[in-house]
Amino acid sequence: MKKATIIGACGFGGLGLITIILQHPGMEISQLIDRTNIGQPISHVFPNLKGHCDITVQSNENINYSDVDIVFFSTPDRAGMTLIRDFHEKNIPVIDFSGDFRFASTEDYTVYANNKGMETEHLAKEMLGNAVYGLPELYRDKIRNARIIGNPGCFAISMILGLLPAVHHKIIDTRSIICDGKTGVSGAGKNPGEANYYPQRYENMNTYREGKHQHLVEVENVLNSLHNDNIKIFFVPQVVPMSRGILTTMYCDIAPGYDTEKVLTLYREFYRDSHFVVVRESSLNTTNVRGSNRCDVRAMVDSRTGKLFITSAIDNLMKGQSGNAIQNANIMLGFDEITGLDIPAFFP
Amino acid sequence: MKKATIIGACGFGGLGLITIILQHPGMEISQLIDRTNIGQPISHVFPNLKGHCDITVQSNENINYSDVDIVFFSTPDRAGMTLIRDFHEKNIPVIDFSGDFRFASTEDYTVYANNKGMETEHLAKEMLGNAVYGLPELYRDKIRNARIIGNPGCFAISMILGLLPAVHHKIIDTRSIICDGKTGVSGAGKNPGEANYYPQRYENMNTYREGKHQHLVEVENVLNSLHNDNIKIFFVPQVVPMSRGILTTMYCDIAPGYDTEKVLTLYREFYRDSHFVVVRESSLNTTNVRGSNRCDVRAMVDSRTGKLFITSAIDNLMKGQSGNAIQNANIMLGFDEITGLDIPAFFP
Amino acid sequence: MKKATIIGACGFGGLGLITIILQHPGMEISQLIDRTNIGQPISHVFPNLKGHCDITVQSNENINYSDVDIVFFSTPDRAGMTLIRDFHEKNIPVIDFSGDFRFASTEDYTVYANNKGMETEHLAKEMLGNAVYGLPELYRDKIRNARIIGNPGCFAISMILGLLPAVHHKIIDTRSIICDGKTGVSGAGKNPGEANYYPQRYENMNTYREGKHQHLVEVENVLNSLHNDNIKIFFVPQVVPMSRGILTTMYCDIAPGYDTEKVLTLYREFYRDSHFVVVRESSLNTTNVRGSNRCDVRAMVDSRTGKLFITSAIDNLMKGQSGNAIQNANIMLGFDEITGLDIPAFFP
Amino acid sequence: MKKATIIGACGFGGLGLITIILQHPGMEISQLIDRTNIGQPISHVFPNLKGHCDITVQSNENINYSDVDIVFFSTPDRAGMTLIRDFHEKNIPVIDFSGDFRFASTEDYTVYANNKGMETEHLAKEMLGNAVYGLPELYRDKIRNARIIGNPGCFAISMILGLLPAVHHKIIDTRSIICDGKTGVSGAGKNPGEANYYPQRYENMNTYREGKHQHLVEVENVLNSLHNDNIKIFFVPQVVPMSRGILTTMYCDIAPGYDTEKVLTLYREFYRDSHFVVVRESSLNTTNVRGSNRCDVRAMVDSRTGKLFITSAIDNLMKGQSGNAIQNANIMLGFDEITGLDIPAFFP
Repeated sequence: MKKATIIGACGFGGLGLITIILQHPGMEISQLIDRTNIGQPISHVFPNLKGHCDITVQSNENINYSDVDIVFFSTPDRAGMTLIRDFHEKNIPVIDFSGDFRFASTEDYTVYANNKGMETEHLAKEMLGNAVYGLPELYRDKIRNARIIGNPGCFAISMILGLLPAVHHKIIDTRSIICDGKTGVSGAGKNPGEANYYPQRYENMNTYREGKHQHLVEVENVLNSLHNDNIKIFFVPQVVPMSRGILTTMYCDIAPGYDTEKVLTLYREFYRDSHFVVVRESSLNTTNVRGSNRCDVRAMVDSRTGKLFITSAIDNLMKGQSGNAIQNANIMLGFDEITGLDIPAFFP
Repeated sequence: MKKATIIGACGFGGLGLITIILQHPGMEISQLIDRTNIGQPISHVFPNLKGHCDITVQSNENINYSDVDIVFFSTPDRAGMTLIRDFHEKNIPVIDFSGDFRFASTEDYTVYANNKGMETEHLAKEMLGNAVYGLPELYRDKIRNARIIGNPGCFAISMILGLLPAVHHKIIDTRSIICDGKTGVSGAGKNPGEANYYPQRYENMNTYREGKHQHLVEVENVLNSLHNDNIKIFFVPQVVPMSRGILTTMYCDIAPGYDTEKVLTLYREFYRDSHFVVVRESSLNTTNVRGSNRCDVRAMVDSRTGKLFITSAIDNLMKGQSGNAIQNANIMLGFDEITGLDIPAFFP
Repeated sequence: MKKATIIGACGFGGLGLITIILQHPGMEISQLIDRTNIGQPISHVFPNLKGHCDITVQSNENINYSDVDIVFFSTPDRAGMTLIRDFHEKNIPVIDFSGDFRFASTEDYTVYANNKGMETEHLAKEMLGNAVYGLPELYRDKIRNARIIGNPGCFAISMILGLLPAVHHKIIDTRSIICDGKTGVSGAGKNPGEANYYPQRYENMNTYREGKHQHLVEVENVLNSLHNDNIKIFFVPQVVPMSRGILTTMYCDIAPGYDTEKVLTLYREFYRDSHFVVVRESSLNTTNVRGSNRCDVRAMVDSRTGKLFITSAIDNLMKGQSGNAIQNANIMLGFDEITGLDIPAFFP
Repeated sequence: MKKATIIGACGFGGLGLITIILQHPGMEISQLIDRTNIGQPISHVFPNLKGHCDITVQSNENINYSDVDIVFFSTPDRAGMTLIRDFHEKNIPVIDFSGDFRFASTEDYTVYANNKGMETEHLAKEMLGNAVYGLPELYRDKIRNARIIGNPGCFAISMILGLLPAVHHKIIDTRSIICDGKTGVSGAGKNPGEANYYPQRYENMNTYREGKHQHLVEVENVLNSLHNDNIKIFFVPQVVPMSRGILTTMYCDIAPGYDTEKVLTLYREFYRDSHFVVVRESSLNTTNVRGSNRCDVRAMVDSRTGKLFITSAIDNLMKGQSGNAIQNANIMLGFDEITGLDIPAFFP
């Protein structure tokens, strides 16, 4: 059994990892670390875990580095930057949920940090070159040998998986991409703000960070790495009254000669070996992916307006976070990619 | 007191009209007509009305035409086509909620009917020329003297009010318009389908009728009437787990030289005399319009991608239906446009 | 026009008052006071008020006492205790939303404060004798001449209105009363806690403060004032995933000889002059009272078990708070009790 | 691998069984039978199953009896009565979700059927004597050798597991029991009614079938089988705007000398060998059991009023239906009781 340690165990990301690992045949939890609830069993923080996982939460001063085959940092931006170095130096593979290691250059990190209104100085810049962007559908081979994975942002995954085949096959005008992303509330983490208080959030939809959401940098980086197209996307994130789920609708001008069937064929071919990406012909529902690691993708050409319309649906806490992280961990540790993750969506 | 008769009183549209008229200082309900619940007090159908409105529902065979100053048809497409003629011939002003009288030509009606998968033969085509599209913000003067109003579709209003100033001032590439519309469930009416059963709808978002929603015809007609631009819009409607509310995000290529401030100035100017359209600078929330007749509109230029981003927010049952209908009725009957409608959104 | 000043304008209670007064023909808002958002228009805090109420929020240092016919304290327990004295000394009628003036004796206040885990020393105890419990259905005459009203707790109103006729007519075993109360989340006020964060609250019901909710003291006081029965009630409050609404189910042993019809007759008679209490024969739904000042009450006898089953339904922010406060204000200021409040429930 | 056949595969009960069996190490699905969707893959009905279970739905005319180790009837009352006989005669173990085989006598069935307003004539009365009530916590040994299991009603399980230890130990006045049950909507099955349409159900709580819910017969039967107490319970079911979850609050007069600690000790002892019943000291939340087979139970004594207050929380589709059915199947087929069911609640 491979031993997993989770830093930031008391957030939704930590809970997601614990829940999956409990059902993983080759992985077990060795240590749970957090800044809060130290000394409490994790089942005190998440009572649904009672009897399933009662490990005591510890502070990061008590980490036992010899009891770790892989470490997950489910911590906010910049919180794990230097502690990750400790694991890295001990040659322990790291999967980081924040944006700290999603970028190969300090320039890109600076754009990301600015969009989020944070400090822009990277505290472990010498390690950026070793980090791999944790998108198995594109970087499976690099991930296999990586020591640090920057697990992608949830909106980023929903956009990249939707756009990848179209950009790869050069069937769209890359200057025309618009992404309209709708997310459930849990993407904001476990600590609430007034805007997501139940009486304020029920029956409420709103846009935010229009054109400058921090995940956009990741998306443009990945897509531009294919053909160096200088792609610039206009992306508008939105919150809807749901706990889980992202539905992203994407619009671009399609090259002449492509209809829905041709595009679907390219998409199916592109994702032939990607178990978790399901290419579909009909309208997507987020309920079909809730609680699962699946990403549904649909492509359709509207000949009347010359638009390619792409939709993707994920669970932001699964393929958008913990599920994708375990998928990366499986690849790094030599398991089949789908181990512990081959579970249908929770419905109804 | 002007006497209002409601055909189709037992649906959400009927309930919306009753609720507003109860608080209207110059209008009262004279007759409630429906195909269901005949002989029952309306407060049996909607128990919240008990003590407020206990009028008995009657069949359309019992209509007393001498007791009507205005009639509202809150009926499905094609259900009121011929009955409307009876009122029209008696010179009683009609406001129709269906698509039957939203089009000036049988050609346009045919496109609309086809999109909705209905019979395309119009049964009262001789009256189409007398019908006015019930959008006060654009056709206030025509409405004043009209005898038949085709009350707009809810999605149509949300798109038209968002795009009108930009199209009027020719500041966008009219071939580039994309509309992404999110609606609450009540737009589907009072009779449920499996897809909107609570356990199927909570935590679920989905797209539907992508590129071919029936309201699109109305939007293109109205916008093309301004400069004959042959505008074609790609519109994707979506349902989110809310009862009320439409948030439509709209994207187009902006002409050179326009920034957010310039565009906002044009928008504010355009809607200067339109009490219910509030032009805003910041992100919109549907909670700010829930239960009110207000339409919030926001415009913003993203210089990085050259996009004009427009958002509109309405309550689909108010500005998107009954509220807008009463606004039309006020104009037709000589009341101030806002009479009975100047109520802030219901929150929280 | 009577001038109303609101202390604590930026909470849900303040918003409720503003919304009602905007539609009240004889009342207008003169001043809005709060500890937060000072210098901002209230429509910045609640954007749904934009164009309806844009009065600037002021600190309590800027109160103009000559511009007040009535003052509402929508403040937490103990926050207004001493400021209320200032208004009282100037002979301005006060309606207080907290528990500070709901009790005639310091002994009862101490029990209340203990249940809530607060300081028990009352800071304006000399005024307790002048305070009237703001339940118009029972104390209409006292309220007419009162100068300080302790507006009841939301759960308290739901229990008292359900039990009053049964206790008054001595048709139940007063030692057998059990109350099971379910509330929406907005009763917790505008400042969120983690437990009511959308992802934690959706799909979640829970009990809390079982047997010791602070509102119980009020209920037992009022009921015991009728016949000095030494009534003790076991009350279990619960939270359900709703914003508004309280449904309280109440159980007691019925005296011999009473069936549902007899009990309903007594209930109807008891509430004959109480416009807002609607006695019903069938199952109650909170949607029938949402947004209205109505309290639906139902009584039913189960002969198989000898139980009287009573249900009440209110909107916790209306009859449970602001609506009831305006009802009290109407009585104090000489308006008809229902002025500005005769509005049907908001549905759907 | 044991082969399971599901009759009524296209409802929520069928889906629940499929989802659990997919993760069960010793069971697999051999046939899916329904009256609807015949010839379609089940993943067409439930798209979340795509790639996980694509078995074709068949009509009951095509049942292959040689390919069944256990059969689940997830069918409405009376729909499977006679088909069950066919399986029974072939000695195939049957687990039935309806009320058809929950009663040992036709008298009890008649009461049940009357409460539900159905035909009262049992069509397979000769088999009633062979049926066992499928509550493993009480009838584990009988279930082991049973050939027909009447899987309990969801509300019944929530009441029985809450009351069993108290009745067994005779620590309550058995004439005083009141049950107040709150359920999510999915208990009503997959076919919606108007009352559970999203816009009608959100923000709505209501009671129904007060004192005469059909599950009451089961509860009284089971409890009376312990000491022949002639227990009669007053039970009020309620619906709240949730998809899954039952929270039942129970009230009874406690015998002298019992405090919370003593009662909790008896409860813990009683459920010592029942893996899925978790006795807790603090307030229950339905989120802690959502998606799991767990039943949380809490007991507390209120000395002020002499009441024993009991709460139970289950997921109505798991411990209240499919999860409990698989637990029964595990026992009948010789698996460890918790096989395939030891999964923590789905959160958030």
